Amino acid sequence: MTVKSTNITTVAHRVTKEARWRANGHKGGVLWFTGLSGSGKTTLAFELERGLHEKGRRVYVLDGDNVRQGLSADLGFSPGERTENIRRIGEVAALFADAGYIVITAFISPYRRDRRQARRAAVDPFHLVHLSAPLEVCEKRDPRGLYKKARRGEIADFTGVSAPYEAPEHPDLLIDTARLSVDESLALLTDYVDRCFALPGRDAEG
Amino acid sequence: MTVKSTNITTVAHRVTKEARWRANGHKGGVLWFTGLSGSGKTTLAFELERGLHEKGRRVYVLDGDNVRQGLSADLGFSPGERTENIRRIGEVAALFADAGYIVITAFISPYRRDRRQARRAAVDPFHLVHLSAPLEVCEKRDPRGLYKKARRGEIADFTGVSAPYEAPEHPDLLIDTARLSVDESLALLTDYVDRCFALPGRDAEG
Repeated sequence: MTVKSTNITTVAHRVTKEARWRANGHKGGVLWFTGLSGSGKTTLAFELERGLHEKGRRVYVLDGDNVRQGLSADLGFSPGERTENIRRIGEVAALFADAGYIVITAFISPYRRDRRQARRAAVDPFHLVHLSAPLEVCEKRDPRGLYKKARRGEIADFTGVSAPYEAPEHPDLLIDTARLSVDESLALLTDYVDRCFALPGRDAEG
Repeated sequence: MTVKSTNITTVAHRVTKEARWRANGHKGGVLWFTGLSGSGKTTLAFELERGLHEKGRRVYVLDGDNVRQGLSADLGFSPGERTENIRRIGEVAALFADAGYIVITAFISPYRRDRRQARRAAVDPFHLVHLSAPLEVCEKRDPRGLYKKARRGEIADFTGVSAPYEAPEHPDLLIDTARLSVDESLALLTDYVDRCFALPGRDAEG
């Protein structure tokens, strides 16, 4: 047999992060949303994604729908399983950031230690965004009726009811979603992204 | 407290796949490389990534370096752990494809059943690419000295030596990397991608 490809072991080089950023016109990185159920994570994540996409940004949302039914389908909601779920999401977010994406993660992520690990996993910019609203407000909204179920004991380990939420002590951005409207919250987020993900020497609208 | 955001439960819509494809100028999907250690997976994945990036495609490689040290850092190489590793990679590849990327996975992925599950996880186009070279050729190349270690019994469960490799029966593309040079293999891969990831009604170079 003729073996032509004796040079198959040539060291191949990855496309650099900077080359990806230039192609996209912005930096990649992680926007890590944290907050109680009902604090607005999913709504704001998708509205922000749509706005950024329309401005030509490369952006993607990781949320319960596309993670809990796939990558983390084997995990429940016990403390250990939540930690493993958040660990995996942190690693996947780091991959998306490395690929040049602005990745928005929309998970309660109640434990400080787990969020710190997600930050460590991301080599690229990582921004912890606390969507802050008091439990009473979130419970009143109860968009999917989950608080009611949790109060009736039909959901175990429900954050705020039967499981703890450790609010971030030093978020990179805090948005009071009890006082601000969706549009006001979105404006803050969009400004923040424009500022943090702009390439050096380029207009934020570039 | 004034609660302004009573409309926080507004149903938000994701950016559609088609909108992402239009923004990128090509479809997203998975190129799933399979083959023995030394068959050329890593070299060809990175060379293909570079070539596609230079043509303006959005492309990313998942390989042992960025997965085994992160997302799958908790997994070894037993059959069960390999299956779980490939399951996770299949789910992450599906997310990248959903985000509009051409994602190339460069893993031995020796089990037919696991590759089938990866195909099922991907809603977007999934292409199984067999980088085919006889064991003797791969073992002679032995780019990282792994076969030697495996023969000495220093690595357990090494595919081709002490663990099985189930060659694909129906790959979407087979490249004989024992006979073809790296450049010849790359040319085949590039043509294949141009054909399979072009948007309908657009020139493949679009």
